[in-house]
Amino acid sequence: MINTALTEIFRIEFPIIQAGMAGKVTNAKLVSSVCHGGGLGTLGAGYMSPEMIRYHIGEIRKLTTRPFAVNLLIQDEEYNKEMFEEGKKRLAPYYKQFKISMDEVVLPSYTWRDQLNVLIEEQVEIFSFAFGVPDESTLKYIRSKGIKTIGTATSVKEACFLEEIGIDAVVAQGLEAGGHRGGFFESDPLVGSLALIPQIVDHLQIPVIAAGGIMDGRGVVAAFSLGASGVQLGTAFLSTFESEAHPKHKEALFSSTERSTELTTAFSGKLARGLTNKLMKELSEDLSSIAPYPLQHYLTAPIRQKATLVNDERYMGMWGGQGSRYCRLKSAHSVVRDIIRETNETIKQLSRHSSLS
Amino acid sequence: MINTALTEIFRIEFPIIQAGMAGKVTNAKLVSSVCHGGGLGTLGAGYMSPEMIRYHIGEIRKLTTRPFAVNLLIQDEEYNKEMFEEGKKRLAPYYKQFKISMDEVVLPSYTWRDQLNVLIEEQVEIFSFAFGVPDESTLKYIRSKGIKTIGTATSVKEACFLEEIGIDAVVAQGLEAGGHRGGFFESDPLVGSLALIPQIVDHLQIPVIAAGGIMDGRGVVAAFSLGASGVQLGTAFLSTFESEAHPKHKEALFSSTERSTELTTAFSGKLARGLTNKLMKELSEDLSSIAPYPLQHYLTAPIRQKATLVNDERYMGMWGGQGSRYCRLKSAHSVVRDIIRETNETIKQLSRHSSLS
Repeated sequence: MINTALTEIFRIEFPIIQAGMAGKVTNAKLVSSVCHGGGLGTLGAGYMSPEMIRYHIGEIRKLTTRPFAVNLLIQDEEYNKEMFEEGKKRLAPYYKQFKISMDEVVLPSYTWRDQLNVLIEEQVEIFSFAFGVPDESTLKYIRSKGIKTIGTATSVKEACFLEEIGIDAVVAQGLEAGGHRGGFFESDPLVGSLALIPQIVDHLQIPVIAAGGIMDGRGVVAAFSLGASGVQLGTAFLSTFESEAHPKHKEALFSSTERSTELTTAFSGKLARGLTNKLMKELSEDLSSIAPYPLQHYLTAPIRQKATLVNDERYMGMWGGQGSRYCRLKSAHSVVRDIIRETNETIKQLSRHSSLS
Repeated sequence: MINTALTEIFRIEFPIIQAGMAGKVTNAKLVSSVCHGGGLGTLGAGYMSPEMIRYHIGEIRKLTTRPFAVNLLIQDEEYNKEMFEEGKKRLAPYYKQFKISMDEVVLPSYTWRDQLNVLIEEQVEIFSFAFGVPDESTLKYIRSKGIKTIGTATSVKEACFLEEIGIDAVVAQGLEAGGHRGGFFESDPLVGSLALIPQIVDHLQIPVIAAGGIMDGRGVVAAFSLGASGVQLGTAFLSTFESEAHPKHKEALFSSTERSTELTTAFSGKLARGLTNKLMKELSEDLSSIAPYPLQHYLTAPIRQKATLVNDERYMGMWGGQGSRYCRLKSAHSVVRDIIRETNETIKQLSRHSSLS
């Protein structure tokens, strides 16, 4: 048992959160395995239809009675359909290469509000979000239903904004993090975790969850040292048995180094960190041809999905953070347990350095 | 007293190193003050003439008998004089604005080898370096004189290379760091400290010194957690009483946030992090007009120096890292002592989180 403000609020054993990775990585097995390990599992429901979210929540509940979170991507702008059509023309050679019909390149018919309604109806215990912020009345309604909330910040300004609107905890996301930058104000200062965490901690009263580059107990203790009340790990759970990341993606993580990832807008139009591959490089050659988020996501999704089906890692989206070489091929609950053991060992070893020891 | 491999090797009380900031920031008072605090002071001799280096070493020795380091910037390429002349034409409007005559825009007549000879003649105890690596025979000669060496790495590959050539300790520089990126292989992976430190530690036998975003005891404990044997801080010493950073530069540090700095090639041609100002923004508008390192340094140096003389912070070079808001207006030795106290407090507090407590 590790007690922090976070373990109290979310009724979890250890303040270790599995990040809600959108894009067919998380499933009931992964989420429940993390929960059984003592951490907080998260369903990455960002690109899931409301029906699919309801299905997954049901599956998770068959496997565990522990609290879990569902993560959504907040996006209020209207789609620019003209830009979408232009993007389709630009990416036509890829569609041809992968025999993708234009009917497969589509924008979703649901919004994040439709998704959120499922969370409310299902009385999910924790709702985490990124890319934006629910409006005041929505947040008030969510809270009135007893649902706890976790927002994502990449700067002090965003973190303060999240605290002001009344959420329960803030993820401070450093630039080491794999996947999407979760911020919502215009310019992202790209601050490293070690610098960002204390600055956010010092400005908030609510608990801060450190994210970005944390892969083991050493990273957890570093985050605690910097004042965080918990940690959120994505990449570390990508490689677990339960994760639905493609085997080629897992292989690439295991053979990666600190130099293997890049921040790119190529896949979604929004800055995200992933393992460099052919599709990322090709699309990045002309940055002006990349459509804004989320259009680029829906434009490239069929390519990345088809590449996954035919095991072609050159065209997949393979998210990963700067600590990806520490991925483990284990059950998610074992990863949580390993990290707890390492955390305790690291704290013990630290006393060597101290004059107080 | 804090014991690590580093305190043994360098015969210092605490494994806290003041970074060797080139460009008229460090002086005998700053270096000796850090040493008296129990840390390791460093003379940033990068752009100093051999005579000036000898003078400063003499001054330091008047003030302390403790070990200190001298930092040089390794640069073996010949200057491209044609590019330098082109650069002078491009920057002519600035020279005119600040009444700088072309005679003041010059390349130095000495090389890093001339500078190094002074360190050897003066039998300096510790030689730290960045931007490159001394060749094998030079390193062998330095070691035969009993001089200890510290190299700078921004990637695992660079760190391994430094260990192979036989240096005593490696600085692992995360992207939060203020001032220049110290690496020497072509592409810089821009890895955050929290991700970089353990990856370098795991690949080396020699002690690793963490740098980048560390401003207080919380950062020191984070670095220790990640496996570092010591820390190097630059920004934290920029604001001290003894530092020769311009008062306007210190003021800007005190009013900065995590969003105030940017990585730029505008001032020297090599990537470095500093507080955003007018000169940085203007020169960054056309990246193709920036001369390669060190030409751009010598092209912009007269502008930055004149701006310093006339107290115009819009045109100064104001280095700083992503933790700059934690700068203190104190003596350098008090900063070292503060950090030691905070380090011990943080380690004590960590036991709250541990099941072993």
